[in-house]
Amino acid sequence: MRSSEQQTRRPLQPRHRWGVAPARISARHTARRRLDHRYALVAGVFSTNADRSKGFAATLDITPDRRYTSWQEMAEQEAIRPDGIEVVSIMTPNDSHYAIARAFLERGIDVICDKPVTTDLAQALELRALSRRNGLVFGVTYNYTGYPMVRQARAMVQNGDLGAIRLVQVELASGWASTLLEAEGHKQALWRTTPEIAGKSTVIGDLGTHAHHLARFITGLEVTEVAAELSTLVPGRRADDNGHVMLRFSNGAKGLLWVSMVAAGNLHGLRIRVYGERGSLEWIQEQANELNFRPVDGPHQILPRGAGWLDPAARRVNRLWPGHPEGFNDAFANLYTDIAEAILARRDGIEADPMAYSFPTIEDGALGMKFVEATVESNQQDGRWVDATLDLED
Amino acid sequence: MRSSEQQTRRPLQPRHRWGVAPARISARHTARRRLDHRYALVAGVFSTNADRSKGFAATLDITPDRRYTSWQEMAEQEAIRPDGIEVVSIMTPNDSHYAIARAFLERGIDVICDKPVTTDLAQALELRALSRRNGLVFGVTYNYTGYPMVRQARAMVQNGDLGAIRLVQVELASGWASTLLEAEGHKQALWRTTPEIAGKSTVIGDLGTHAHHLARFITGLEVTEVAAELSTLVPGRRADDNGHVMLRFSNGAKGLLWVSMVAAGNLHGLRIRVYGERGSLEWIQEQANELNFRPVDGPHQILPRGAGWLDPAARRVNRLWPGHPEGFNDAFANLYTDIAEAILARRDGIEADPMAYSFPTIEDGALGMKFVEATVESNQQDGRWVDATLDLED
Amino acid sequence: MRSSEQQTRRPLQPRHRWGVAPARISARHTARRRLDHRYALVAGVFSTNADRSKGFAATLDITPDRRYTSWQEMAEQEAIRPDGIEVVSIMTPNDSHYAIARAFLERGIDVICDKPVTTDLAQALELRALSRRNGLVFGVTYNYTGYPMVRQARAMVQNGDLGAIRLVQVELASGWASTLLEAEGHKQALWRTTPEIAGKSTVIGDLGTHAHHLARFITGLEVTEVAAELSTLVPGRRADDNGHVMLRFSNGAKGLLWVSMVAAGNLHGLRIRVYGERGSLEWIQEQANELNFRPVDGPHQILPRGAGWLDPAARRVNRLWPGHPEGFNDAFANLYTDIAEAILARRDGIEADPMAYSFPTIEDGALGMKFVEATVESNQQDGRWVDATLDLED
Amino acid sequence: MRSSEQQTRRPLQPRHRWGVAPARISARHTARRRLDHRYALVAGVFSTNADRSKGFAATLDITPDRRYTSWQEMAEQEAIRPDGIEVVSIMTPNDSHYAIARAFLERGIDVICDKPVTTDLAQALELRALSRRNGLVFGVTYNYTGYPMVRQARAMVQNGDLGAIRLVQVELASGWASTLLEAEGHKQALWRTTPEIAGKSTVIGDLGTHAHHLARFITGLEVTEVAAELSTLVPGRRADDNGHVMLRFSNGAKGLLWVSMVAAGNLHGLRIRVYGERGSLEWIQEQANELNFRPVDGPHQILPRGAGWLDPAARRVNRLWPGHPEGFNDAFANLYTDIAEAILARRDGIEADPMAYSFPTIEDGALGMKFVEATVESNQQDGRWVDATLDLED
Repeated sequence: MRSSEQQTRRPLQPRHRWGVAPARISARHTARRRLDHRYALVAGVFSTNADRSKGFAATLDITPDRRYTSWQEMAEQEAIRPDGIEVVSIMTPNDSHYAIARAFLERGIDVICDKPVTTDLAQALELRALSRRNGLVFGVTYNYTGYPMVRQARAMVQNGDLGAIRLVQVELASGWASTLLEAEGHKQALWRTTPEIAGKSTVIGDLGTHAHHLARFITGLEVTEVAAELSTLVPGRRADDNGHVMLRFSNGAKGLLWVSMVAAGNLHGLRIRVYGERGSLEWIQEQANELNFRPVDGPHQILPRGAGWLDPAARRVNRLWPGHPEGFNDAFANLYTDIAEAILARRDGIEADPMAYSFPTIEDGALGMKFVEATVESNQQDGRWVDATLDLED
Repeated sequence: MRSSEQQTRRPLQPRHRWGVAPARISARHTARRRLDHRYALVAGVFSTNADRSKGFAATLDITPDRRYTSWQEMAEQEAIRPDGIEVVSIMTPNDSHYAIARAFLERGIDVICDKPVTTDLAQALELRALSRRNGLVFGVTYNYTGYPMVRQARAMVQNGDLGAIRLVQVELASGWASTLLEAEGHKQALWRTTPEIAGKSTVIGDLGTHAHHLARFITGLEVTEVAAELSTLVPGRRADDNGHVMLRFSNGAKGLLWVSMVAAGNLHGLRIRVYGERGSLEWIQEQANELNFRPVDGPHQILPRGAGWLDPAARRVNRLWPGHPEGFNDAFANLYTDIAEAILARRDGIEADPMAYSFPTIEDGALGMKFVEATVESNQQDGRWVDATLDLED
Repeated sequence: MRSSEQQTRRPLQPRHRWGVAPARISARHTARRRLDHRYALVAGVFSTNADRSKGFAATLDITPDRRYTSWQEMAEQEAIRPDGIEVVSIMTPNDSHYAIARAFLERGIDVICDKPVTTDLAQALELRALSRRNGLVFGVTYNYTGYPMVRQARAMVQNGDLGAIRLVQVELASGWASTLLEAEGHKQALWRTTPEIAGKSTVIGDLGTHAHHLARFITGLEVTEVAAELSTLVPGRRADDNGHVMLRFSNGAKGLLWVSMVAAGNLHGLRIRVYGERGSLEWIQEQANELNFRPVDGPHQILPRGAGWLDPAARRVNRLWPGHPEGFNDAFANLYTDIAEAILARRDGIEADPMAYSFPTIEDGALGMKFVEATVESNQQDGRWVDATLDLED
Repeated sequence: MRSSEQQTRRPLQPRHRWGVAPARISARHTARRRLDHRYALVAGVFSTNADRSKGFAATLDITPDRRYTSWQEMAEQEAIRPDGIEVVSIMTPNDSHYAIARAFLERGIDVICDKPVTTDLAQALELRALSRRNGLVFGVTYNYTGYPMVRQARAMVQNGDLGAIRLVQVELASGWASTLLEAEGHKQALWRTTPEIAGKSTVIGDLGTHAHHLARFITGLEVTEVAAELSTLVPGRRADDNGHVMLRFSNGAKGLLWVSMVAAGNLHGLRIRVYGERGSLEWIQEQANELNFRPVDGPHQILPRGAGWLDPAARRVNRLWPGHPEGFNDAFANLYTDIAEAILARRDGIEADPMAYSFPTIEDGALGMKFVEATVESNQQDGRWVDATLDLED
């Protein structure tokens, strides 16, 4: 019975990406409810090892009949149960996203999928067609878009506070793989540096798609062309670990994108700066509760999350008062909650709060894959400019 | 049945302090479980208005028979149920803490109580005696001690990284009440500036006790004497809204403590600096994921939460990798989890992980009340030095 | 001949405080001239050792007849030369300021003197009376007031940007004397920790007077009462090395002042925060090119030195465009230039630019001595409040 | 006579670039002397308008016979005077550097020249050949290399603190020309955006050469290839105002260089980050007194200018103790002083302190011109990689 369902703690433990986490939206929802009330975790596969998967499922209070050992089994079983899951969360290595997502979409189950959404563009377009054909929600966890001050940045661009956008500088440069970790048995490093699993470009697929989406999310612009250099800076590594990309945007704006796993000494290193005619914005994940606004004709302003005078888009996802920091988990939860709103609205045949629809979808996922492919192509062709657009009009 | 219990979201929504939130520890616990699995919210009073209390309880999936309308009723009923609550959380205005805590302690129910723990020292000592007599856990939510980098600071002092402590400068100075909000019907402002509810000193009771405990927690020292000036800086206000306190510590160290509600332009404004013979530490809540260490003979160091080389006390409560910010909710949850460990150990008749026992107890609550009283006395006596110690040896 | 005079480099090398540096104002001055054109160094005593004094004077292109070996000799000789100095700079240990200043004032020579201006209040008042009687300029080098963004802060308070001032928090807490340097032959440490040379309180005299003046300069308020604790935190030291002072201001505002030589790990540690009804200002010497303004109802603003929209008082002393940092030497030079303006105006019998008169005078020096004495008295009397005002009406 | 010479204040007023400032090295020099004693300004041209030039020269105490109205006249006259100038400083618009420098070099006078050193590579190589043939010093004012913490960064790379360098990210992105200032009669904007004066690329010539040299100075690496996009982002502008350049270095390291005049809201915007195998360095001009060092296996360190434990290369150019900020003028003066050392050593036929020879020379100037040309070529060729090396072996 639904009232007995445990809540998911997936979004609160995003590091457990090694499993499939199918979740069911709580039937009871109120405007005040936050993520921890929006999902109940009722079924799942949590490891490729059957015993470990079942053992972990048990600690999550999943009933024995729903502790699956393969996603195929789970998709089949859940699809026929009367109380089957409504939505599945896919947090597996990149190369498995496509098959899993397809299996659930084909059975009418909404999908929340990690990025990069597939390992090539064709698969992403196929998933897009399938989700559209079946009328399903397909959320992609470009999770940084869940931060209130990222929402504020987007709103300020939309409101014209910067004037026309001219420059976008975005970085996601960490130093976590500055040594050859994969040779030391480091699991994450191993799959991320194995091209067969990670895809055509590790840094662009894993990090570049985040940065690409964040730039698009905040500016509302599309990346039209890229000129790139992808490098392997740690000797012995099989995958690229650093990417420099020059960007051209749909309105004529220019940009630089830097992604790295070998920026030794950096922490996660996510930062974006957007410059317009009348000023600029800077957001740094490590000071996530602040947004820097620098108008051309006045002082540098630091906007604090939580202020009553922020844009409704930022206030809508605010939890705490200014000075009490929110973090990564809170932002991730905001994204999940938005997706929950959209799924509920879909099931009820209504429209959700328009602000809920800012979450990334399969279209964004497909554009990310196009970005990966264009970047790889430019890199192979002496850095020349390559088209990065996608015709998604149909 | 227990497996159907919803988790509590108290620690994730600490702003809902206007009710009584009694919680039951989940029977299923593993070493990996985090807060969201440590408590299940099964009963409660959420408003002095019966309808609102019941309505809110319903949204939390509390069964109808446990949606109480008074804490007295709840204490009586829960004490006789076979599946009665194991622990109660008290998040009500200051003047009601004592009576509620006593009611549950007398019935053998562990207590988690907001600070200041009472409105005078005598009540706090009485609660202490009662909890000791009944062998119960009494946690006090000086929640800032849940931050990993506060734990790191404490460990570094204990490890002697600073040498003997000489100076402690602590501030909790926000600007939220810079105008006469209480005259505009602002509820929080109203009860906090009503001496009959807030106690002998609003700023010292509400903010000073936090700062006092944080200084004690990190340094391991006791405040022995205080010289204070308490002021009302907003015309028309009935309570003090700013406090300046000079401190003397048990080892001869000196300090300054500043608490304010009228530091216009500040956000929450919590910051502590501890200086020893060999260097100093600085922690600022608004950059909670960092700890500043400044040795006398080397560069300023910024220690990031999440680093593998931090002290075990900090790593134990870490959730995310460096660069992905944790926030207020995460820290609060750490405190709740520590208390859960202690309660479970008490029930099982064993010792919990020694690191779990760093959470604040009724002794800390009583010392906080002594601090309030000493500060008020010094203020009344032209700023002279007043004893702030408490003999808790028995 | 005057056209051959070298410029002084005193303000550019303020560390050479071990001598007497008498300077002559350049006869040629234009509105555009900066400090380096405002003074020519033509005579001096630079050491108590005659050979060293003469040798150093030679490197400064001082003619042989004006390389003096005592300030007495210099005062006498320069007073009777037709091209004698117009102004003397006193940069000697505290206990010699009074006698030197008096000797030059008596001979009609303007004085620029380091702070604390004397070792007791009576001497300061005597110098004040003497300089007034002789109609001379007496500048005191509270040099931090030369920073453009300190001038901006003062202007903003004057303009009412903060509303009525309520709180002032000022610190000058370095860690340079965290060990017993004076026992290791460290010259500066030696004279500063010798009460007979440094005066009644080393930290208040040396550091506290700076902080006290900066608070007065920015707020335009007087300190009326103090409650203090002065401590010696390094074992074996003869002087105090840390001071905590609670402040009351003429308009009812409150404050805390912290000065220290043992804040281990701090650099120079000068910072001031001023809170008013409508917002607050923060200036930190280590980020001297910025002024933080935090209005109650908007974002934190960082005002950059050099912006065209700053107050005229800040623009008047600006040298470089925003983003090119100015430093300590530039600020010190601004103070010297202001004093030069005042001296020239006095000699010409006219008024200088009103903004030039913001430099500290013997009145400020005397108020500093009163502050020292009041603080020492409070410390001796169990921290009780002591009057810190001075009647300078006559 | 030499003792009557005024010191130059060129380096202290670098904004007066509209003239030719020939300077004579003071014959008297001691180890303690700083810039203000190293040069005496004795002759000059200060404007293309003869009256203005002479008028300004007069305010600088230049004798009437040396107040020139053209650089041609000055070169001729000074070359034949027995007390003629020893060194000339060229601070004119870019297109005149070559002819002026050649005129003085041909007459055996050392040269200090602003950057970019010429408007094309051929001219720079010609000046190089000429200065080598005549055995003269040719200093180029890439002035940011004068900052102590830039010297520290260079020393740390040389000492191997970072291991092999992998990545270099450098920016010099200000927002000063975010609007079409040149249409409003803004003089600086006018000549800088006139290709005939500014050269083939304004942003690369004016800003890119600074960034290029700073990267080379700190890392000791050469830029071997570039892939670039140069843009004009302000409508109506005749010159480029933004440049994005991907870099390849001689050891295989990669980099990004961003230069802009239209980064609206930025101040001067100079920042460099250098990543190696074992950690990274970051220096930001706006916090010029700090150097950030982030080792892979420890905390982020902020090294303060002035610390006794810094590298000798940084301590050598230090002026003030830590916490008292030094600025742009101090750094510029350091560069001038280094050049003075080299000139004096050349004249004396000896070697100066090896550390003095870090100042930029005509070789650096020529490499800067090659960088401009390669960047322009890549931009014209669809962003493909273009060689940026120069064979300077002969």
